[in-house]
Amino acid sequence: MAVGPATFPEKMFPVAGFKLGTTSAGIKTPGRKDLVLMELCEGATVAGVFTKNAFCAAPVTICKQHLSAAEPRYLVVNTGNANAGTGVTGFNDAMLTCTEVAKLFAVTEQAVLPFSTGVIGEKLPIEKILAALPAAKENLSEEGWADAGEGILTTDTRSKGASVQFEYQGQVVTLTGIAKGSGMIKPNMATMLGYVATDAKVSQDMLQRLLTDATNASFNRITVDSDTSTNDACILVATGKSGVEVFADDAALLACFSEALHHVMQQLAHAIIRDGEGATKFVTIQVESASSQDEALRTAYDIAHSPLVKTALFASDPNWGRILAVVGRAGIENLDLDALQIYLGDVCIVSKGGRDALYTEEAGQAVMDKEEILIRVVLNRGAVSETVWTTDLSHDYVSINADYRS
Amino acid sequence: MAVGPATFPEKMFPVAGFKLGTTSAGIKTPGRKDLVLMELCEGATVAGVFTKNAFCAAPVTICKQHLSAAEPRYLVVNTGNANAGTGVTGFNDAMLTCTEVAKLFAVTEQAVLPFSTGVIGEKLPIEKILAALPAAKENLSEEGWADAGEGILTTDTRSKGASVQFEYQGQVVTLTGIAKGSGMIKPNMATMLGYVATDAKVSQDMLQRLLTDATNASFNRITVDSDTSTNDACILVATGKSGVEVFADDAALLACFSEALHHVMQQLAHAIIRDGEGATKFVTIQVESASSQDEALRTAYDIAHSPLVKTALFASDPNWGRILAVVGRAGIENLDLDALQIYLGDVCIVSKGGRDALYTEEAGQAVMDKEEILIRVVLNRGAVSETVWTTDLSHDYVSINADYRS
Repeated sequence: MAVGPATFPEKMFPVAGFKLGTTSAGIKTPGRKDLVLMELCEGATVAGVFTKNAFCAAPVTICKQHLSAAEPRYLVVNTGNANAGTGVTGFNDAMLTCTEVAKLFAVTEQAVLPFSTGVIGEKLPIEKILAALPAAKENLSEEGWADAGEGILTTDTRSKGASVQFEYQGQVVTLTGIAKGSGMIKPNMATMLGYVATDAKVSQDMLQRLLTDATNASFNRITVDSDTSTNDACILVATGKSGVEVFADDAALLACFSEALHHVMQQLAHAIIRDGEGATKFVTIQVESASSQDEALRTAYDIAHSPLVKTALFASDPNWGRILAVVGRAGIENLDLDALQIYLGDVCIVSKGGRDALYTEEAGQAVMDKEEILIRVVLNRGAVSETVWTTDLSHDYVSINADYRS
Repeated sequence: MAVGPATFPEKMFPVAGFKLGTTSAGIKTPGRKDLVLMELCEGATVAGVFTKNAFCAAPVTICKQHLSAAEPRYLVVNTGNANAGTGVTGFNDAMLTCTEVAKLFAVTEQAVLPFSTGVIGEKLPIEKILAALPAAKENLSEEGWADAGEGILTTDTRSKGASVQFEYQGQVVTLTGIAKGSGMIKPNMATMLGYVATDAKVSQDMLQRLLTDATNASFNRITVDSDTSTNDACILVATGKSGVEVFADDAALLACFSEALHHVMQQLAHAIIRDGEGATKFVTIQVESASSQDEALRTAYDIAHSPLVKTALFASDPNWGRILAVVGRAGIENLDLDALQIYLGDVCIVSKGGRDALYTEEAGQAVMDKEEILIRVVLNRGAVSETVWTTDLSHDYVSINADYRS
């Protein structure tokens, strides 16, 4: 069902100082990998971005508290149960997980960050999780990325990873990350779950700023179904083990690092869209020369969320009237219809307030027949551009969400 | 496919001074009724509300111009072609229709209001329309509501009508109306097409105010797919033939009339939802005790547009976590999770930030099994309530919009 080639690289470069251990706790399906533990070396810095959903899950609340209270040493992730909408019991269950991990490694419980993903509103099977933690500890390894990439999945049909290295003044810096997510995807400050680690040394302040920037160009620009999850979280860890320190005064290094981070996070974000529930198309929506970021983003998201545009994409139908209708309702004040153009790929479909004079159905059809489709709206009223990525709306989307309690 | 019993009353009370004539112009399907002409007596007042889509269709632009220029005497509606996104040619075609009707009845062309609905972006088959106008004129009759109700349909599976009478000081006042619409339904100031007539006498100012109020409680509170059409229009005609004059000083009569108008327009709006594309459920979403109208409406529409909520409704799955997640992402500032409740019908599903202590899956299932479902969100933070109506998201919705160029 997923769009395009595999989204997990054969080679995931290990990050010195960052270990991953994965096991099966039997939370939902017996034998399926569903519990992941990550160990950070002492001195590592950590930045995080979390869902803005007011009903955020218990583990998200605890993560934020612990991040501000102590230096994180362990991340623990369970799938199959989101521990969201679970009230006080859910909070206690997430804390119990932290306490147990803290005991196993003789650290404070504030050094442990908990994460959950899966069905909302059911009690966390805490006994199963506690019982499986020692096995996850056993498996801790810097080579553990592939198993962990599998261990964090829920309705995803495939693993999502990205890994790059760059050289700076003779030293090699590594960035490696994994993510999961397929439905309930319109992240607001983060995606379902993403974990990126680097062996660069980066201060916590700088790391948080870099993560926020990269998130706004990746996870915060994708949507499958407009629904923001209760459990979104993305964590960036800098172990410092490469000996390369990224700091504001070295602008060239900062630029290299930032570019590598954007690359890794955009690859992970795109991997989520390619595996969007029921997806048969990978769609890029670019709104250009808008008068504000808000205007550009609203127009792009309105197109990305329109069920009529999404079903036309599924049908490979160049039904450009539906795109035009969305642009018209996107609330752009004093929109000059004669000034704007809409393109499908390289084909101009709308200009001067109606169908472009040179447009042919055959040219539109040729673009729509592809698996990867670009929709460009050129507003010609300002200097702001924004890009979002989305999927089509297929029968499988309805089946997946009507048949499965996710 | 439609939800609930038929939405066209057996008895449509004629409105003195208002005639309808319907015929087949062969615009899309040969033999199908697709051209409707309406004649208003001299002295009738007319109010209209129109789409706010910036790409509004040529006939909408002309309607607004003509309404402000002259006393309307004729309405002409074609289906099968929206004459939207058609540039200057579309404008000229719509004007040609007006000119021809004006010639047939020896009135000015400003006395004619044109309407179109159907596929966007294709040239209006103007010759077919002009050729069929005399036949529509032949059929003009105060009894013509049923044929006209059929003649304005496109992807609709059934006609939509409403008709009431009330007595005031021994005199009978009639209100009768028809509407169409099934997809691209999130009207913004009006619905796809609605025509309501009354034999009361009402000044143009008063009529416009009454129509706007009633629209905001009916057509402007429904959504099938969040897509606002380019052709939405709703027209209210007052012929004055009953001899009863509605004016501000007679508060009792004004209240009666306003109530009857709300009733007719709400019935028509509900009929559109019951016939929403692929609909298997009729869903009422009520947000109560919000701190502002904007907050209440945004929350209600976010629920109504969530594909995850809509597919759960299709599956009759009491997946309350999805509703909770939408309320959490609706952008309600400083939302107090402990204060709010969410109900499925009479069953409390969420309270104190999580699943209600007394909730059972059986109770939730019993509500979701019904064809008509009420979702209530009680925010407990203010005095504003709003209600919107919507459909579920089914396989048929995808089939209809992926298979048919609408």
